[in-house]
Amino acid sequence: MRVLKSPDAVQALCLSFREAGKTIALVPTMGVLHEGHLSLIKAAKKNADKVIVSIFVNPSQFGPSEDFESYPRTFDADKEKCKRAGVDIIFAPMSDNMYSEDFSVWVDEDKLSTNLCGARRPGHFKGVCTVVLKLFMICQPNVAVFGKKDAQQALIIRRMARDLNIPVKIIITPVVREKDGLAVSSRNRYLTPAEREQATIIYKGLQQVKEWRKEDLSVAQIRKKLLKFIQQAHDARIDYVTIVDEKTLKEENKPYPGQSLLIAVAVFFGKARLIDNISFKW
Amino acid sequence: MRVLKSPDAVQALCLSFREAGKTIALVPTMGVLHEGHLSLIKAAKKNADKVIVSIFVNPSQFGPSEDFESYPRTFDADKEKCKRAGVDIIFAPMSDNMYSEDFSVWVDEDKLSTNLCGARRPGHFKGVCTVVLKLFMICQPNVAVFGKKDAQQALIIRRMARDLNIPVKIIITPVVREKDGLAVSSRNRYLTPAEREQATIIYKGLQQVKEWRKEDLSVAQIRKKLLKFIQQAHDARIDYVTIVDEKTLKEENKPYPGQSLLIAVAVFFGKARLIDNISFKW
Repeated sequence: MRVLKSPDAVQALCLSFREAGKTIALVPTMGVLHEGHLSLIKAAKKNADKVIVSIFVNPSQFGPSEDFESYPRTFDADKEKCKRAGVDIIFAPMSDNMYSEDFSVWVDEDKLSTNLCGARRPGHFKGVCTVVLKLFMICQPNVAVFGKKDAQQALIIRRMARDLNIPVKIIITPVVREKDGLAVSSRNRYLTPAEREQATIIYKGLQQVKEWRKEDLSVAQIRKKLLKFIQQAHDARIDYVTIVDEKTLKEENKPYPGQSLLIAVAVFFGKARLIDNISFKW
Repeated sequence: MRVLKSPDAVQALCLSFREAGKTIALVPTMGVLHEGHLSLIKAAKKNADKVIVSIFVNPSQFGPSEDFESYPRTFDADKEKCKRAGVDIIFAPMSDNMYSEDFSVWVDEDKLSTNLCGARRPGHFKGVCTVVLKLFMICQPNVAVFGKKDAQQALIIRRMARDLNIPVKIIITPVVREKDGLAVSSRNRYLTPAEREQATIIYKGLQQVKEWRKEDLSVAQIRKKLLKFIQQAHDARIDYVTIVDEKTLKEENKPYPGQSLLIAVAVFFGKARLIDNISFKW
């Protein structure tokens, strides 16, 4: 396994792979690798000859009041995990090499990103799209793997590839969960033991939806029930609880039978902002 | 020479060229090909195995009050010219195949584009950056050729390639002029014979700058002299006359000795908005 910091060096290497007929899968991460990332890497290995994991805490996707500075960095442990998972290359650039002082070109999405996390984190998806496009250009992947936990991000990246004609297949893998159902996330580290226990309420609530569906409730009623359910946890501060069309991410109050919906929630517990979601058909 | 309309077909073909070790040069155009474009094609042929000319009047770079509808289309003549110039592929997509109904991802530049044409044509360079990135992804060029006449556009595209790590070399070729000095442009067709005659004032003015430099005038004085000079033409309506740093495109009133400057002008004659520029060292 090679660990490279220079965008130019990685690009030269990846272009040479492509010329030699090798396929490349990219797994973009911000490090602090956990089981979720390992499932992305597994999917990557299945779909290409060479697997690149990028590790880069991308400053441009954090808002001024967000946790960029305090975001955990665990590079040595990440390296070990990548090695064991059979990764070929870690690309771990320095911020200065990704954003020059007079950096001025941005990629932005203006429909899917107006709701959910996009509405709460202005500029977040502009930062995400820009860095992911840069990573695509540097790593020249045939395939890139994103997790369903960040459902909106995955959809936006897929839209970016479609709209900008980027020849990269976007694979979206299922949410990986702890035994008690909590979605695995780097930000779970921020939770105190008491918060960690309460945080299981999120997935329990999402599971309840299946039950409520049997009661023939409306979308609005289900949404309200889920909100109340999560609020049972003493330290939960709801950021959003929303039911949207799974393709457009627009709020859906009167779905047609069979319509694919996404229930997406974001809840603060202490310092941690946790997100989770499930898809279901109406 | 092949003429292709489908972005997917062109992309598949170009990816196969690249896998076979062929280099590709792209010349993005809006058609109505003239001597300026032919000089771009010549540069393209010198720098790659395969030359693709894209012909696409890109709606997203025209403002609502601009000439998108009336912009001339001369496809048959363009085809003939490309054939004679030794072009390998014409890529002439339909608008619907470039911009789907729910198109939502845009590329924008926010420093170089705030001045000159960018200030007068809101959204213009967003449209340009977006379509050029799409063309890069579709045509997979090693090299792309742009004309110096659109100096700001060329600089912004070069910046886009740098900031987004796009592995495409941007070649900028000199302004091609008619015998009387008028910069060759598709929009020259809009000129009445009287306007056409007057329009030579632009290049004459730019040439005068060399003389004025000998008189030890300030940047502000030269700018004023050039403005007055062009205003001698009865039908000239000045959009801008500006002297900027050639790298940052910021207005420069007190250049240091040896600083590279760009004098850029945009002047309306009747329906035609004409642009021109010269570079010089202070």
